[in-house]
Amino acid sequence: MLKVALAQLNPTVGDLQGNGLAIAQAAIAATQAGAELLVTPELALCGYPPRDLLLNPDFVSATGRALTTLAAQLPPQLTVLVGTVAPNPQAGQVGAKPLFNSAALLQGGTVQRFFHKKLLPTYDVFDEDRYFAPGQGSNRFDWKQYQIGVAICEDAWNDETFWEHKAYPIDPIAALADCDFLVNLSASPFATGKQHLRERLFGHGAQRWQLPTLCVNQVGGNDDLIFDGGSFVCDRQGQVVARLPQFAEGLAVVDVFPDKVQGEISPLPSLPEAEIWEALVLGLRDYARKCGFHKVVLGLSGGIDSALVAAIAAAAVGPAQVLGVLMPSPYSSQHSIVDAQALAANLGIATQMLPIGPLMAEADRTLGPLFTGTPWGLAEENLQSRLRGLLLMAVSNKWGHLLVSTGNKSEMAVGYCTLYGDTNGGLAVIGDLPKTQVYALCRWLNREREIIPENILTKPPSAELRPNQRDQDSLPPYEVLDDILERLLVQRQAIAEIVTAGHDPATVTLVQRLVTKAEFKRWQAPPTLRLHNRAFGSGWRMPLAARRTELP
Amino acid sequence: MLKVALAQLNPTVGDLQGNGLAIAQAAIAATQAGAELLVTPELALCGYPPRDLLLNPDFVSATGRALTTLAAQLPPQLTVLVGTVAPNPQAGQVGAKPLFNSAALLQGGTVQRFFHKKLLPTYDVFDEDRYFAPGQGSNRFDWKQYQIGVAICEDAWNDETFWEHKAYPIDPIAALADCDFLVNLSASPFATGKQHLRERLFGHGAQRWQLPTLCVNQVGGNDDLIFDGGSFVCDRQGQVVARLPQFAEGLAVVDVFPDKVQGEISPLPSLPEAEIWEALVLGLRDYARKCGFHKVVLGLSGGIDSALVAAIAAAAVGPAQVLGVLMPSPYSSQHSIVDAQALAANLGIATQMLPIGPLMAEADRTLGPLFTGTPWGLAEENLQSRLRGLLLMAVSNKWGHLLVSTGNKSEMAVGYCTLYGDTNGGLAVIGDLPKTQVYALCRWLNREREIIPENILTKPPSAELRPNQRDQDSLPPYEVLDDILERLLVQRQAIAEIVTAGHDPATVTLVQRLVTKAEFKRWQAPPTLRLHNRAFGSGWRMPLAARRTELP
Repeated sequence: MLKVALAQLNPTVGDLQGNGLAIAQAAIAATQAGAELLVTPELALCGYPPRDLLLNPDFVSATGRALTTLAAQLPPQLTVLVGTVAPNPQAGQVGAKPLFNSAALLQGGTVQRFFHKKLLPTYDVFDEDRYFAPGQGSNRFDWKQYQIGVAICEDAWNDETFWEHKAYPIDPIAALADCDFLVNLSASPFATGKQHLRERLFGHGAQRWQLPTLCVNQVGGNDDLIFDGGSFVCDRQGQVVARLPQFAEGLAVVDVFPDKVQGEISPLPSLPEAEIWEALVLGLRDYARKCGFHKVVLGLSGGIDSALVAAIAAAAVGPAQVLGVLMPSPYSSQHSIVDAQALAANLGIATQMLPIGPLMAEADRTLGPLFTGTPWGLAEENLQSRLRGLLLMAVSNKWGHLLVSTGNKSEMAVGYCTLYGDTNGGLAVIGDLPKTQVYALCRWLNREREIIPENILTKPPSAELRPNQRDQDSLPPYEVLDDILERLLVQRQAIAEIVTAGHDPATVTLVQRLVTKAEFKRWQAPPTLRLHNRAFGSGWRMPLAARRTELP
Repeated sequence: MLKVALAQLNPTVGDLQGNGLAIAQAAIAATQAGAELLVTPELALCGYPPRDLLLNPDFVSATGRALTTLAAQLPPQLTVLVGTVAPNPQAGQVGAKPLFNSAALLQGGTVQRFFHKKLLPTYDVFDEDRYFAPGQGSNRFDWKQYQIGVAICEDAWNDETFWEHKAYPIDPIAALADCDFLVNLSASPFATGKQHLRERLFGHGAQRWQLPTLCVNQVGGNDDLIFDGGSFVCDRQGQVVARLPQFAEGLAVVDVFPDKVQGEISPLPSLPEAEIWEALVLGLRDYARKCGFHKVVLGLSGGIDSALVAAIAAAAVGPAQVLGVLMPSPYSSQHSIVDAQALAANLGIATQMLPIGPLMAEADRTLGPLFTGTPWGLAEENLQSRLRGLLLMAVSNKWGHLLVSTGNKSEMAVGYCTLYGDTNGGLAVIGDLPKTQVYALCRWLNREREIIPENILTKPPSAELRPNQRDQDSLPPYEVLDDILERLLVQRQAIAEIVTAGHDPATVTLVQRLVTKAEFKRWQAPPTLRLHNRAFGSGWRMPLAARRTELP
């Protein structure tokens, strides 16, 4: 029997010292728990995704030095597989990107060897062909009486029963089928329901190759990506026999017997809303922490989006560290203020009131010489949003709060937002959550006691940029809009397919046109916490100076 | 003898109708000039780079239909090679991205066959592995008495005499060495001096393989990328025997004889400043045009950056379509207004004056309850910049001007700019031009008569956000800063290397720290016209929630 420790770590990208320390601490804890082998997530030493830091020669050489130093610090009786980058010795010859995405085998105080990732995801938010050469060698090692296979994340995501077509011509796991067990170092970002998919996919592989599989996943928020952890073990029947909690760091030790694997199974969140909530709280908390912010500021409009983001912020950094700023205009309804204050009281966060009427009037006076005689319209509506954005940034600059933006995915999709106004912020917390899911999440949040005031949940949504404005004056009902957006953006259905599903052709065309027209706003948007398989942000790369026409 | 036409086209991404029409018109002109073969740039039918439009099934099928329609519209006696996407018939099987980046051979009214790009650039601004499968087949065809080789852009960029190491294990050109000549369909983006490199590299290949080479490059601005055209022909001795002008559409017809190739040679710009000027004017003109803007607005501070951008805008869309807005504050010097007005008079552009003093005072009053007792500082400085940004966006929203931002690369690098303030705009025109090059370009612009007022060139640069502020109070001298930035960002030198080159270690470390700290501003910056091999923008992908530490 072999005791193997799974270290579900939360690295900060680039923080070699902090990440190395966390690995060393996990190694001590693993040894104390009797483990002889410790496995970390993918690129645990430098954090995932390091992006273009990998193009920096200082950073790559520092990572190499950190690995050597780390190896010398580890308990001598422990064997450790650490995710890191490795130089490609073929660099300088043909066909060679300079790096591998690797697992380093550390034993006896030194770096023994590397196993390189073979399948490099280059789609959606992944750019691994940009940095890495695919590994070619054998990813297995003999140790004690065991033959151990090593895979890195995508290496196992090549199963034709789960994808319409396999994305890669080789299956790195097939070559490891005669090993005693497989370890997979992962940095697999969260999307709703992704953990179920992971366990089905890895379970299928474990059963297919009769290969017990230990998957160690990164946890934590890194920019727009949330890693949910949920590291788990499948036995050779494909059953999950051990699991770490999602959305938290942790260390699990499992017992690998010749005929079975034993460990503890943490439950998964029972509802999708619970999972999304945990993801958003972690995403915001880590973005703030890793960027060095202790406090969060946001505008409280009295609407549901800012209410939800305030609740997330209070959970992420603590209510005492959150400031909600009420910025009523002459077009704001009284209930906006009352509702926002009730929300703040429920959450226990501080508020400040900065009425924008006088600034609006002064802006009108300043622009008067130019605007006289023109009809009141979009320019004046946007001024209100931009004055609010300006005041929030002043607060952020004055006291070092992280400003978070509160727009939802439906708005960001169709451009129902003001660039340099309500889009302002270091992080778009719910920019990948459609409006209908914003409601669902708030109702779930209220399941035990009222956190989001009931009036916020029931009143018709409005931007309140002109008298009696309602979202539904400009947009299709959110149930319709969100279904079209899901089909258009996430499922990538063709227009005809969406119409066949029952939507009005004119509405579908309108939504597509609005989505295209709003690309320029998304180009300049803050990082958006990613909740679905196709989100706005680093995986959304659309042209701006473009036009969609067809040859007749 | 064969007459071959090179169509240096300026497609709009996604505009299948407009791009198809331009190809059809080039085909008519080519036929009238006696050509029997016409070659377009890479992806000329959909425009390069189409980015994630390629993930849209409607767009891909529309492109296929457009190609069929186009083939039927062409003069029957003309053979045409058109850059387009082609479906991968292996999609649905293993290892297959669904598309190829291809040259379609159109003859006799139909699509005869495709030649697929083999080398897919995936670095810097290029993401081709994200979309395309590499071609495997033979890229040659027999036609009349000729054997013609077909390459697509990167296929020819694999020459170990020009790169420290070849980037790809295969050389697609070697397999075509026995052809009579080679055509290369390119979309090779501009960088300073790139045309000289192209001609040396292609010339070397032509000589090495004894293979006359016709390179047809896209021209025009597409988002942050400027394509400079400069399509050219090398004979088998590697000499350039024909060249189209840079930065303009054009059609050239060359005579391909068994022993020589003849054409006309347009000269290249004689100075780097002339080349950069042409690039920026084209980049701004096309961004405005392709996004549907006719007018440009910008803030005129009286400083050199906005002066240069105003001159570029006047050249790009015409002085009558440019509005310069002067927004003096109580900290603005009188010469700022005088200099800005002199500049506007020199350019013939309209100006408006919107003093921001009253808005600043009102913002102070609004924030008073919060800010009382705090020292005046960054928050108040940024307010001025953000009030200006807000007024400019109001003008843009009111009349549909394209707002352009005026920050230079040195500022964008070290974060000497205000997010949601002076960074506001649809396009960052000189965001890849270091401050020292801003001066050089302005002096070049003044070579015949004063366009940029002399006082703007000679006064010390200042943001004028507090009394007597000078850039050099906060930053190293621009000559020093720009050299460090060039080494750090473009040449990717290690810190030690930059220090060895003679820079003060503390200054180098400071600059690197400032660059890292400003990543969040660049994440939300507008597209930045790219002038150098490593620019901020779509090819700059850095983490935000990151920290750079080393294990001791």
